[in-house]
Amino acid sequence: MNERMEPTPALPGRDDIEAAAARIRGRVRVTPVVQPGAGFLDGDGELFLKLECLQHSGSFKPRGAFNRVLSQPQLPAAGLIAASGGNHGAAVAYVARELGLRAEVFVPEIAAPAKIARLRDYGATLRIGGRDYAEALAASRERRDESGALEIHAYDEFAVVAGQGTLARELEQQTGRLDTLVVAVGGGGLAAGLLAWHGHHQRVIAVEPRRSCALHAALDRGEPVDVEVAGVAADSLGARRVGDIAFHLVLAGDVRSVLVDDEAIVAAQQRLWSQLRIVAEPGGATALAALLSGVYRPRPGERVGVVICGANTDPGLVA
Amino acid sequence: MNERMEPTPALPGRDDIEAAAARIRGRVRVTPVVQPGAGFLDGDGELFLKLECLQHSGSFKPRGAFNRVLSQPQLPAAGLIAASGGNHGAAVAYVARELGLRAEVFVPEIAAPAKIARLRDYGATLRIGGRDYAEALAASRERRDESGALEIHAYDEFAVVAGQGTLARELEQQTGRLDTLVVAVGGGGLAAGLLAWHGHHQRVIAVEPRRSCALHAALDRGEPVDVEVAGVAADSLGARRVGDIAFHLVLAGDVRSVLVDDEAIVAAQQRLWSQLRIVAEPGGATALAALLSGVYRPRPGERVGVVICGANTDPGLVA
Repeated sequence: MNERMEPTPALPGRDDIEAAAARIRGRVRVTPVVQPGAGFLDGDGELFLKLECLQHSGSFKPRGAFNRVLSQPQLPAAGLIAASGGNHGAAVAYVARELGLRAEVFVPEIAAPAKIARLRDYGATLRIGGRDYAEALAASRERRDESGALEIHAYDEFAVVAGQGTLARELEQQTGRLDTLVVAVGGGGLAAGLLAWHGHHQRVIAVEPRRSCALHAALDRGEPVDVEVAGVAADSLGARRVGDIAFHLVLAGDVRSVLVDDEAIVAAQQRLWSQLRIVAEPGGATALAALLSGVYRPRPGERVGVVICGANTDPGLVA
Repeated sequence: MNERMEPTPALPGRDDIEAAAARIRGRVRVTPVVQPGAGFLDGDGELFLKLECLQHSGSFKPRGAFNRVLSQPQLPAAGLIAASGGNHGAAVAYVARELGLRAEVFVPEIAAPAKIARLRDYGATLRIGGRDYAEALAASRERRDESGALEIHAYDEFAVVAGQGTLARELEQQTGRLDTLVVAVGGGGLAAGLLAWHGHHQRVIAVEPRRSCALHAALDRGEPVDVEVAGVAADSLGARRVGDIAFHLVLAGDVRSVLVDDEAIVAAQQRLWSQLRIVAEPGGATALAALLSGVYRPRPGERVGVVICGANTDPGLVA
């Protein structure tokens, strides 16, 4: 743990995201935006919810995975390989199916049943083992060295971050300029994508569960460090260490890191259902939890974009 | 049953819908549209799903209810009264709460528990009784004559239909011209609203459950007639007789009436969840069921708008 920080990785920027958007067009959905309207937030601010929970495979992850594969000079004959607590694995399995490739996905034991079922439905070969994402990743890399499959990292990879950045580009086209973007952070791939698009010109609130807060810990220590992960959102936001790409983009950006309790996450899930009939998984409701719990309070008239980034859960749990 | 048809009722048109849109602006959500993309439909056609299930109170009904109340010279001091299998009642309760009025809602015994819970949450006074909508309506009218409250009819009322028509106006602004609109029909208020906006210039597919098909029966007989209602969508589409306004607008429009089985409705609910993470109640998935079951098959390139009109169900039932 806590090794010396690596040299600055290559960081994607606006041109890379434009190229990613062209590459993945038609393969990912343009997900809708809804304004919940007056009375949703006890306080000020005009919310724009980006319903990325309606994306193929139930989360934003296909944006990065498609961009990673389609950035290759040719499709990998040996297929795709990934390690994932669930959403990334589902996305890789979906991408493989759509492109006619094989996929092998290493899933830690904590993965949610709804996510594992989804992986099987997409036809991926599943390997369940390891206590957490880091152990699953190590196993996947051993296997990759044998099989020659293309590894799709869940977050800390140039093309993956550029792909996630297409969400920021799309949201900007839908809403125009927003004062603030609020986004959940696990390994930081989505936040990195937003920052790669907007740079330091966009205020970003990076929200983590108090019990899975790899970015917050990295900012405290001045470098990415390993953390313990637990809590209701651990199956999607439980990265043990934030990505280097994300960490560097956060340092260069206008980012405030905030933490929310599990109770606030569950309350946000319930509010999304009761007032909007939207199902979000815990990680998908974590950004909104920062607003509903008052951890982040917008100014009057502040235009706030909130990414609802995943819905791979049992919908019966949200009502 | 089968009395002589009434003379043609006053029918709302485009100007009435423009006025309604101005009246209810800011009180109803602009609901989003999503294109599910390739692979969703086994066949041709480009789908635009209008996610009216994300409307306040979980269905399109507040559009008409707000327009009805706000069309009055002043807000009714004695409050609102309505009879409803659920969605309309929830909307009237929501509208009353937002406008600071009392509401009394008569609910037949077949109403879904999720809908009754919603009514209570909004603070309406509930009266549960009667085997179906028609009996609840009769009871509500007795009570109205005592209380002097403003009756909001669930579908067969000029201002209600004009309010529902704002959905067609909004969808047109979002997507531009569509070749076909596909909409579920119960009493016909929403279909009537779409037809009031578009007239005979818009092809409309009016979809009913085979076991609750008041419009289909009226078209067969040449006039509205009473029908038996049953099936999975009866709690929202189970009107015993189609509205006169809707019937006249259907006759004047370019409308094809089609029927779907309960199994197709349930399959459409499941598809909305598994591929889009959208929760719809049976009535809310009925329009889509016509496309997924092949009862209506679009031509190649046909641009088809599908209204997903309600989500007041237990979300655990859709997965």
